[in-house]
Amino acid sequence: MQVTVAQVAEFLGGKVVGDPQVKVSGISSLAEAKPGDISFLANPRYEPMLEETAASAVLVAKASSIDRVSQIVVPNPDYAFAQVVERYGPQPRPVKPGVHPTAVIGEDVQLGEGVSIGAYAVVGDGSVIGDGCRLYPHSVVGDDCQLGPDCCIYPHVTVREGCILGARVFVHSGAVIGSDGFGYASVEGVHHKIPQVGIVVVGDDVEIGANTAIDRARFGKTIIGSGTKIDNLVQVAHNVEIGQHCIIVAQVGIAGSTTLGHHVTMAGQVGVVGHLHIGDQAVIAARAGVSKNVPAKAVVAGTPAKDVKMHHAQEVAARRLPRLHQTVKALEQRLAELEQRLGEGSGS
Amino acid sequence: MQVTVAQVAEFLGGKVVGDPQVKVSGISSLAEAKPGDISFLANPRYEPMLEETAASAVLVAKASSIDRVSQIVVPNPDYAFAQVVERYGPQPRPVKPGVHPTAVIGEDVQLGEGVSIGAYAVVGDGSVIGDGCRLYPHSVVGDDCQLGPDCCIYPHVTVREGCILGARVFVHSGAVIGSDGFGYASVEGVHHKIPQVGIVVVGDDVEIGANTAIDRARFGKTIIGSGTKIDNLVQVAHNVEIGQHCIIVAQVGIAGSTTLGHHVTMAGQVGVVGHLHIGDQAVIAARAGVSKNVPAKAVVAGTPAKDVKMHHAQEVAARRLPRLHQTVKALEQRLAELEQRLGEGSGS
Amino acid sequence: MQVTVAQVAEFLGGKVVGDPQVKVSGISSLAEAKPGDISFLANPRYEPMLEETAASAVLVAKASSIDRVSQIVVPNPDYAFAQVVERYGPQPRPVKPGVHPTAVIGEDVQLGEGVSIGAYAVVGDGSVIGDGCRLYPHSVVGDDCQLGPDCCIYPHVTVREGCILGARVFVHSGAVIGSDGFGYASVEGVHHKIPQVGIVVVGDDVEIGANTAIDRARFGKTIIGSGTKIDNLVQVAHNVEIGQHCIIVAQVGIAGSTTLGHHVTMAGQVGVVGHLHIGDQAVIAARAGVSKNVPAKAVVAGTPAKDVKMHHAQEVAARRLPRLHQTVKALEQRLAELEQRLGEGSGS
Repeated sequence: MQVTVAQVAEFLGGKVVGDPQVKVSGISSLAEAKPGDISFLANPRYEPMLEETAASAVLVAKASSIDRVSQIVVPNPDYAFAQVVERYGPQPRPVKPGVHPTAVIGEDVQLGEGVSIGAYAVVGDGSVIGDGCRLYPHSVVGDDCQLGPDCCIYPHVTVREGCILGARVFVHSGAVIGSDGFGYASVEGVHHKIPQVGIVVVGDDVEIGANTAIDRARFGKTIIGSGTKIDNLVQVAHNVEIGQHCIIVAQVGIAGSTTLGHHVTMAGQVGVVGHLHIGDQAVIAARAGVSKNVPAKAVVAGTPAKDVKMHHAQEVAARRLPRLHQTVKALEQRLAELEQRLGEGSGS
Repeated sequence: MQVTVAQVAEFLGGKVVGDPQVKVSGISSLAEAKPGDISFLANPRYEPMLEETAASAVLVAKASSIDRVSQIVVPNPDYAFAQVVERYGPQPRPVKPGVHPTAVIGEDVQLGEGVSIGAYAVVGDGSVIGDGCRLYPHSVVGDDCQLGPDCCIYPHVTVREGCILGARVFVHSGAVIGSDGFGYASVEGVHHKIPQVGIVVVGDDVEIGANTAIDRARFGKTIIGSGTKIDNLVQVAHNVEIGQHCIIVAQVGIAGSTTLGHHVTMAGQVGVVGHLHIGDQAVIAARAGVSKNVPAKAVVAGTPAKDVKMHHAQEVAARRLPRLHQTVKALEQRLAELEQRLGEGSGS
Repeated sequence: MQVTVAQVAEFLGGKVVGDPQVKVSGISSLAEAKPGDISFLANPRYEPMLEETAASAVLVAKASSIDRVSQIVVPNPDYAFAQVVERYGPQPRPVKPGVHPTAVIGEDVQLGEGVSIGAYAVVGDGSVIGDGCRLYPHSVVGDDCQLGPDCCIYPHVTVREGCILGARVFVHSGAVIGSDGFGYASVEGVHHKIPQVGIVVVGDDVEIGANTAIDRARFGKTIIGSGTKIDNLVQVAHNVEIGQHCIIVAQVGIAGSTTLGHHVTMAGQVGVVGHLHIGDQAVIAARAGVSKNVPAKAVVAGTPAKDVKMHHAQEVAARRLPRLHQTVKALEQRLAELEQRLGEGSGS
């Protein structure tokens, strides 16, 4: 990377404030930047950092009067910086095109153009691997799966038989797509496995984190909508349906047959019981335990999850609770004294 | 699948109500059924769905007066339907018998009759693989392990050295059996690893979910009792002993040396501290944090876990807490007024 | 193992109380010991177990007057026993030295002296594997990684490209080091992936549990300090920095850019939000939800996490809450009666 501020501004369609001929050769956060780095100011309240950063150029949403660094004004510095990193940043070694001689490709497999299939990857019979897919070493795709174009399957991912992935799906190491749902018919204390004959269908532009598990449906489909991003160690049970463009943070668990609308956000370690509906654009705060339907656009917190304002009122009240016990005790004494005086009074 | 209602009824030992000659060719839930499908009514309160379902036949516990579909009366429609799915439902491609040429089988390994060992599976020295076991591609069984008959080991499972699995154990992708327990002797702030030289012993008919981790004992055995079913992403620490026919739902964590009786149910995301005992048939509600022994048949909830009725009483009380603060404040004012009047009164 | 108490005492530098010529041939806990076993008394309050154990010799911190077993007095019986187990206990089969013929070693890889690389292990281009490292079957080390001497990488571990491990790092099965951080720039409801071009740097003597995920930094480094031990199924997000000698118990989740000092303890299922600092030697109780900075040496519990004494006071108060509602209701009635009497009184 060796590029001028002017060139970066042109790539981004941004406006330069300061010297456009400054050369940048590295990327970094404001705090860690060295001279020659380009960085970005995502949040205007950190503007004072422009006084101190060693960066040579900074992407900003609004030009700052601080003139020690060249600025490029863009509508969304966070997103623009992601584009800069993708275009100019450090590139991983390119994956080797073609099928590694140790990969095991089943019968009747269709491999798209330009696929890269790494050492010891296994693709089951009847599967379709879209153009440009990268299957890293030790990824396993079962029988009769379909992967859309440009998917990226990292080492030690398992995609079980029959599952369908859209275009540009990233699946991180250790994730499992299509494990059996957890379902048993219990007869006289013995739990008999209920066959899980459905599949998982993942839309386009989905990302699935490391060691996340998405169970196949009992019958029908477990669905992950297009544009949804799922973090690490998340549990998605059988027959769950997640809408489009949701954000599901690490260690969330969603029980069976629950459905999510679009643009739902679930922060880390949330748990949701089964057979619920979470409405469009709802936000579930970190660690909330959801036991009832959540309306669209609601913001809920706590266990059991409730409106976030009510939750905070309860928390404040709980903090004052030890003192409330004391207050009530004092009230009781004062009241008893009054009663006694009045009792004496009335008896006199 | 192409079969008459009469044939299904005969297979199940059930009684037909309606036309026994109706043909069924698919399986589905009531809500998703198409004509020609067979379905089931697990819960009588959904009986009105029989008015609307497109299914051609339904398994029921009690004959309904709704006569638009053929019914098969069986004691447990859920279980019966599982049997129908297993017998008539979609079958995965049969695993290929024998040992894939790329599988690495160690020295002194005993392979049972009819085993199927997939591509790149690894079986360590001295291990015994029972009759009919299926080891999927990329499963790893360490040295000196024993697998009973008809186990099913999915891709990317690790069974570490010395561990013992009973008959018909299913282990889902990414699960780890026999990882080292988390034990250290801390000397002047430095944590020295305590060797974990025990094993894990898993009974018969156990299922272990995707990306679940079961640690080997410090010495002796970590034990999973026969008939117990464990969901995804569960943590079972060293020297835990789980009894028979327990249900452990996703993302539960059980700390070291805790023991469970039989038929214990732990709902999702429960946490249990170490060195406790959970009695037979106890039920731990979702997300409960268990910090004390739980008696047999108890139902507990909350953190710290307590009797579920007490827990609910506390929750109701907590919801009314912000108002209680107001009530007490009002009481204080009224009392102060009384005191003042009486003070004036007594002073007059 | 066949050794005298005198020999063990000499190895440990401990003092024998009782017969030094007793032979021991097995190791066990006090409760499970058989004659001929050596065991240890970690906690003096279990001293009565010395009356009942079948063990032939016991490591103790202080000589007991119970003389049925030979005792070896050492400063830290727990640690000493770990040393005994390591020296005399059951040994796993030695790993086979050298590179298994099926392992795939990339270009420009440096393999140290005495490495053992198992079946189907994959090492990417440009990586450096230190002396004495053991890579078990099906471990994957990406391009341009560095492993210090004597690391132990279990089956199905993924170390992604560019990550750096110190000396003697143990990584358990299914763990992922260097998965992409969870970062998106959202533009008009569409989440655009932010490239994660940083790495993970792990110090010396670190242990990382089964199915744990440690994300690479957005840029720069996610850091795990030397001597830190991480249990199973833990989530460490991008740009987290964990200090030295910390203990992170199973199923903990630490959100992005949070930093931990040294000797921090996080018990099981703790969650920590992003961009916080947890001070040196702080202790976070099990299942706590940390939403603010934690000062050095603080002990916090609950969600939101607070000083453990305050947390317990709130819990006690919460338990008494249903009764408090009743008390206040009774107070209201008594006060109303008083008010009525006084009203009548003043009206008369």
